[in-house]
Amino acid sequence: MQLEPRAGRVRLVGAGPGPADLLTVRALRAVEGAQALLYDALVAEEVVALAPRACLKIQTGKRAFEASMAQAAINRLMLRLARRGLDVVRLKGGDPSIFGRVGEEHEYLRSHGLEVEVVPGVTAACAAAAQFGFPLTHRGEARSLLILTATVANGAIPQGGWAGANDPEATLALYMGRDRAAAVADQLVRQGRSTSTPAIAVENAGHADARAIASTLGGLAAAMHAAQPTGPVVLLIGEVAARADVLFEGRSDGAGISRTARP
Amino acid sequence: MQLEPRAGRVRLVGAGPGPADLLTVRALRAVEGAQALLYDALVAEEVVALAPRACLKIQTGKRAFEASMAQAAINRLMLRLARRGLDVVRLKGGDPSIFGRVGEEHEYLRSHGLEVEVVPGVTAACAAAAQFGFPLTHRGEARSLLILTATVANGAIPQGGWAGANDPEATLALYMGRDRAAAVADQLVRQGRSTSTPAIAVENAGHADARAIASTLGGLAAAMHAAQPTGPVVLLIGEVAARADVLFEGRSDGAGISRTARP
Repeated sequence: MQLEPRAGRVRLVGAGPGPADLLTVRALRAVEGAQALLYDALVAEEVVALAPRACLKIQTGKRAFEASMAQAAINRLMLRLARRGLDVVRLKGGDPSIFGRVGEEHEYLRSHGLEVEVVPGVTAACAAAAQFGFPLTHRGEARSLLILTATVANGAIPQGGWAGANDPEATLALYMGRDRAAAVADQLVRQGRSTSTPAIAVENAGHADARAIASTLGGLAAAMHAAQPTGPVVLLIGEVAARADVLFEGRSDGAGISRTARP
Repeated sequence: MQLEPRAGRVRLVGAGPGPADLLTVRALRAVEGAQALLYDALVAEEVVALAPRACLKIQTGKRAFEASMAQAAINRLMLRLARRGLDVVRLKGGDPSIFGRVGEEHEYLRSHGLEVEVVPGVTAACAAAAQFGFPLTHRGEARSLLILTATVANGAIPQGGWAGANDPEATLALYMGRDRAAAVADQLVRQGRSTSTPAIAVENAGHADARAIASTLGGLAAAMHAAQPTGPVVLLIGEVAARADVLFEGRSDGAGISRTARP
């Protein structure tokens, strides 16, 4: 009988929107017990600091939809570390199953015979809504939530997955929306969504320095230009956005900007 | 000067999919510090048990879209408890902003001058995907996630919010889907979604006794009839569902049923 070399395991873990207390308890324990931690650029320093001192910590810099070479390198690195017998934690911002490329990583590791576990997390849309006090669905007003990315391919927003974006009873959550707000608003209006639809851009959702930029679909591009967010932005578009706790500055165009006092 | 009576605060807290270790750390601390805990029928006993012994614990029995009288009674109860100066925690399964009626509760409490905080949670679709190892979005295959309910009004599924359900590049997550699977499948096929679209019904997502019933849109009703789930069910429909870790039993119709060994 031949002994198998001891293989570690890999956990693909959602870190949630940022603050350490928005990790799940299961994710916290995974980080606290990690021997190797590979973490995305969006994972906060305070979360990485929860790993043991002896843990090998590697910032992958990876964000969703980056070049596939980077992904292949991350895959190989996870495999190598796990085959050394290490308990590997791959930490991703938000929930790993939503725009976290967990599918590629899971299947690569599984195809190499590793045990893989996925730990879910709080996704950015939920964090943004909680922080600014508006619901994502609301009786008689928003019957569904459509989560999309605002990335572009070949200069245009891919149409796949956008069919429901013109539904007036759907709330849209557009991830990675900072630099695409104008293109997104244009596309939605072209698809028939009203320019008066409430829209909120939430910068650094979940973090203590989160900021909500409240506007309408028609005013979104100008509001973003005025506010100049530099952090990650999730765009929330739909009637529910009008219910947010945003401190309006009394501007004549109805736009408002709020920094939240809530963590 | 008249002194204000001390008013407590209300926190609307997502309990996640079930197990106590899928609470966020912030939610755990809220429950551990609660003086009054109002919890939905879907919140697990092990989570309720985390509240202090002296905490007043009230099961509201509330699920999404129940009669508004029940909601009004819950609202008044939260207000009364908070005005007694208690630290009130309103605990909901999943994430409170998604089909959790957080909008109504938040606005009622705010309109009565109370301080309200919302704590986000892990929503059922993310828990189901993590547990059975499939992604909700996947490069070139699933560009968006549409979260809907499978409830009916006047015998039919409301059309609002469903416009994107026929998009072949959208993953659908249908909440409260157990008793509506046949109606949902019919509607999706009528909307043009292929009968060969992979579909997984996950019963008790997130719990140790979770079960995945794997099928296709065309076979979903029969698979549900054969499996007879009794717990809450989230239906995941889209190409990504074919990537799940489901132990197929080699049935000729391609359907499979799996109980997970993973918590």
